[in-house]
Amino acid sequence: MKPQLKIFKIGGGIIDHAPDLLEFLRLFAKVSGPKILVHGGGKGASDMMASLGITPRMLNGRRITDEVTLDIVTMFYAGKTNKQIVAVLQSLGVNALGLTGADGNVILATKRPVREVDYGFVGDLNEESINVGLIHQLLTLGITPVFCPINHDGKGQLLNTNADTIAASVAKALSRQYAVELHFCFEKRGVLTDVADEKSVISKINLFDYAELKESGIIADGMLPKLENAFDALQFGVDKVIIEHALFIDEALKTELCLT
Amino acid sequence: MKPQLKIFKIGGGIIDHAPDLLEFLRLFAKVSGPKILVHGGGKGASDMMASLGITPRMLNGRRITDEVTLDIVTMFYAGKTNKQIVAVLQSLGVNALGLTGADGNVILATKRPVREVDYGFVGDLNEESINVGLIHQLLTLGITPVFCPINHDGKGQLLNTNADTIAASVAKALSRQYAVELHFCFEKRGVLTDVADEKSVISKINLFDYAELKESGIIADGMLPKLENAFDALQFGVDKVIIEHALFIDEALKTELCLT
Repeated sequence: MKPQLKIFKIGGGIIDHAPDLLEFLRLFAKVSGPKILVHGGGKGASDMMASLGITPRMLNGRRITDEVTLDIVTMFYAGKTNKQIVAVLQSLGVNALGLTGADGNVILATKRPVREVDYGFVGDLNEESINVGLIHQLLTLGITPVFCPINHDGKGQLLNTNADTIAASVAKALSRQYAVELHFCFEKRGVLTDVADEKSVISKINLFDYAELKESGIIADGMLPKLENAFDALQFGVDKVIIEHALFIDEALKTELCLT
Repeated sequence: MKPQLKIFKIGGGIIDHAPDLLEFLRLFAKVSGPKILVHGGGKGASDMMASLGITPRMLNGRRITDEVTLDIVTMFYAGKTNKQIVAVLQSLGVNALGLTGADGNVILATKRPVREVDYGFVGDLNEESINVGLIHQLLTLGITPVFCPINHDGKGQLLNTNADTIAASVAKALSRQYAVELHFCFEKRGVLTDVADEKSVISKINLFDYAELKESGIIADGMLPKLENAFDALQFGVDKVIIEHALFIDEALKTELCLT
């Protein structure tokens, strides 16, 4: 039987509120067994750019990662946010170790090719991107890897990568060796039938339910890419994907996704 | 016989000049056997503070690391500088992995006690600070640890520590298991008898020579604490301490310190 591995992903919504982040880290510290944390960005980098008088370059509502933006997100995500999380986890008894993809060549990305849009220093991942051997060795040493959304291309260039993508890619790659539970944590209790009602969590969704929920319009907008990602991970061998509130990971109310 | 280990320390003088840093990293990549890099800060953090309109708090010519300063040095040293160095080393075939002391609890510092002066978030090291086991395990995996001058206190607080101190402490702690060569790299070819003459390098200095050179005034000022540190490391079991130019580590002209 494969050993268990739990991967948690948190985003800017939690990171931007220090008391929420601390509460999540307290709950994460109590999670038993081998585990990994993947964190996204947050408003800090944009706020600093504003303070420095730098206007983010946007195109069709998406930020272009130019050189100055990359420098600042590297400072925030790989520096301040990652190291503060690691230091707090250490104080809570978790032997955390922060990583960009460049560290130990743990995630090798490819700069997104320029087609209609040049997104700049953005890194895409593929099936070969994840250094499963190193992650396994770190877990064997009792270490909890903490990934920030900065990777590299192996040629000396750092690249910005979406944290959901990192979490899903790490989960898929490690599912060969581990029974992986992938937890997407955000500010809702799960997939809701009624967005206005926090208690209307759908506890279990399989691929068949998903098709129905999509057709009926109950799942729409921002939830769609999240679930596409989740089912993709399941199809690649991840055991379980859970969508839950970052501040209630210890409670039963959440959405579990499964293939059948 | 103990296995060899080479530890290199570089400071702001190299880090602040991108072409010099790249040249040093190229030379460092060619160094054979297990190795460690320790880097200091640089002007980047001060420049950013100036751009943000933050005035560094100084006392008797020394910077006070208050909360905002700590945030910015963490972003620069642990984020930008450390990760750029790691990415470049990866591109040069070195399996580098960047670390603050918080990562894997690899260096545990103690906040400097407030006596006449409160230096703020500055971390001192002692004989128990270095997690020899983790560094040994990383080296065994073929990893080259890259330390930045940020540590933690184990209670969730990051702390700023002098990079010379980190290099000497890591060297001393690892000298139980390794034959350690500690290289302090700077912008001179070594200890000079005449500061105006780059070729006047003293090739070997033992404790007896050191006492004489100090008395005659040939070694003075900024070189004194460097050499005190170096002889301290030798007395704690470090095999060899070398003082050399960061851009000529592959050349023979350098100063080697030894006890006898």
